Amino acid sequence: MTASVRVPASSSNLGSGFDCVGIAIDRWLVASVTLGGTGISIRRSGTLSAVPVPADQDLFTRGFRAACAAGGAPPGGAGGGATIEAASDISIGCGLGSSAAAIVAGALLADAAFELSLSRAQILEIGTTIEGHPDNIAPAIYGGAVLSVHTPAGLVCAPLHVARGIELLIAVPPFPNDTKAARAALPQTLPHTDAAIAASRAAALVQGLASGDGALLGAALDDVLHVPFRRGRIPGYDAVVAAARNAGAFGATLSGAGSAILAIAPRERSAAVGTAMLAAWRDLGIEAELIKCTSDVAGASVIAAPRTPHHAPLTTHQ
Amino acid sequence: MTASVRVPASSSNLGSGFDCVGIAIDRWLVASVTLGGTGISIRRSGTLSAVPVPADQDLFTRGFRAACAAGGAPPGGAGGGATIEAASDISIGCGLGSSAAAIVAGALLADAAFELSLSRAQILEIGTTIEGHPDNIAPAIYGGAVLSVHTPAGLVCAPLHVARGIELLIAVPPFPNDTKAARAALPQTLPHTDAAIAASRAAALVQGLASGDGALLGAALDDVLHVPFRRGRIPGYDAVVAAARNAGAFGATLSGAGSAILAIAPRERSAAVGTAMLAAWRDLGIEAELIKCTSDVAGASVIAAPRTPHHAPLTTHQ
Repeated sequence: MTASVRVPASSSNLGSGFDCVGIAIDRWLVASVTLGGTGISIRRSGTLSAVPVPADQDLFTRGFRAACAAGGAPPGGAGGGATIEAASDISIGCGLGSSAAAIVAGALLADAAFELSLSRAQILEIGTTIEGHPDNIAPAIYGGAVLSVHTPAGLVCAPLHVARGIELLIAVPPFPNDTKAARAALPQTLPHTDAAIAASRAAALVQGLASGDGALLGAALDDVLHVPFRRGRIPGYDAVVAAARNAGAFGATLSGAGSAILAIAPRERSAAVGTAMLAAWRDLGIEAELIKCTSDVAGASVIAAPRTPHHAPLTTHQ
Repeated sequence: MTASVRVPASSSNLGSGFDCVGIAIDRWLVASVTLGGTGISIRRSGTLSAVPVPADQDLFTRGFRAACAAGGAPPGGAGGGATIEAASDISIGCGLGSSAAAIVAGALLADAAFELSLSRAQILEIGTTIEGHPDNIAPAIYGGAVLSVHTPAGLVCAPLHVARGIELLIAVPPFPNDTKAARAALPQTLPHTDAAIAASRAAALVQGLASGDGALLGAALDDVLHVPFRRGRIPGYDAVVAAARNAGAFGATLSGAGSAILAIAPRERSAAVGTAMLAAWRDLGIEAELIKCTSDVAGASVIAAPRTPHHAPLTTHQ
């Protein structure tokens, strides 16, 4: 084995933070690479064994090759080949950032194996280019809750504070969503009035997460930019969101594009909210799994490297 | 004299906080009311002497009458009449919240004169209904920087933190903008991609103000929701914004819908930025005035009332 990395899951959007806000989740993809042989081969275990879409299987390779290109390394070992072994407990296609984790893992494996010394900002650009948006890539790299903003000068990331009095809960059903179809469901244009509402609610998300203000979080979780066009694709969405609210959550929304559903609740109501979400899905014959999020999940880290192992999380922004 | 109030100026939008973010400015409208006579008459001094638009002259009356209606008071004194005297040093029609100040003053005068005991939330709703948007009304009432978000359950306001290391500067030219025309210049629809960018930059504004992160503030001040459609109406806009950036500002944008231009800069560059903005306008033969903002300007207050004078600023939110 030449290098080994671990990368967390993540939940993106959090309602009105469409394509720009995400938070790392305590589920992990662990991958290692051994250089040699010919071509790049991948051995998968855990949730990765059941990867349903062939394109998803290529994300390790795409991240690996893009990092090699950025760092000036050959796309495989001395002989041009590499074997990646990957295990994961991140549900695939459920809006938990499994794609982002695979891309970041591939890029970090190349960075570590070839000692490319790519910066976190370079890994972020590589990942965002492949994924198309930074909202899962950034928390996968940096950990915690992260805001990522495209600017003419490049991508800007910043950590977001999450108030201690609130809890984020994710109910994960046993079926995936089709991410490409979810993106294709978005309209080409929006009324300007809706765009203005969307902007105010994105502002409310940042301020609500920082302060724990339930009214702001309720507004922030009531997205108008993507959820109205996507929620119909998730069986039980309305019932689970209503159950979360009735149990005391400030609101609930899609995790990423779904299928998982994220609720934000006052800490003292979080147990009841989680129970209610699972029960609402169970009433429809769906056994979902509950993940309680914390805001201090570390980002990706290299856990073994050829000469200079470094175990610290890669938390330096930009 | 029956009651007297003072209300601050305000700057709204701050780039990407369209119709939802505003900050109180240390310029003031002071107004008093004497009940009696017939009808409502208004005596103006200061900048109000030169009010160019008749409709603007009615904002005191509209605020006053709306508060009377909300509080169950007659729309004038015992005889149905009232005389409002108002003085202001807030430039009219320049994007400094002169309309919001007049509306809030009118409403608070009625509240104080008739001891209606309206809540700040009620004054906010009255003002927002008349003005059409809360972004100047909220800081005029609460002071400081405020986020206001429309929700199905009503308007939600929250104070925003402004980092100590940054300074907001406003260059005010001697010509007003036509606010109604500036609003009419907005398009009916936006591409979804632009709406998503707008949302990310509104998030960047809140986080950038709180942290002082210059990259976030630069993104936040580069609005895509309203400024591109309005800036052509302000002579010198591009030159003044470029001058601010070149002098070290993170960015600059319209104050409200203009004509004034707001820059945000690192504190150590603020003097140079202010000088550069005025010089850029002077090169075009325009003598502008500079206002340095602080984030701790108080909101509206009642400075004299019939029986129970209370001098404390009205800073309780909601």
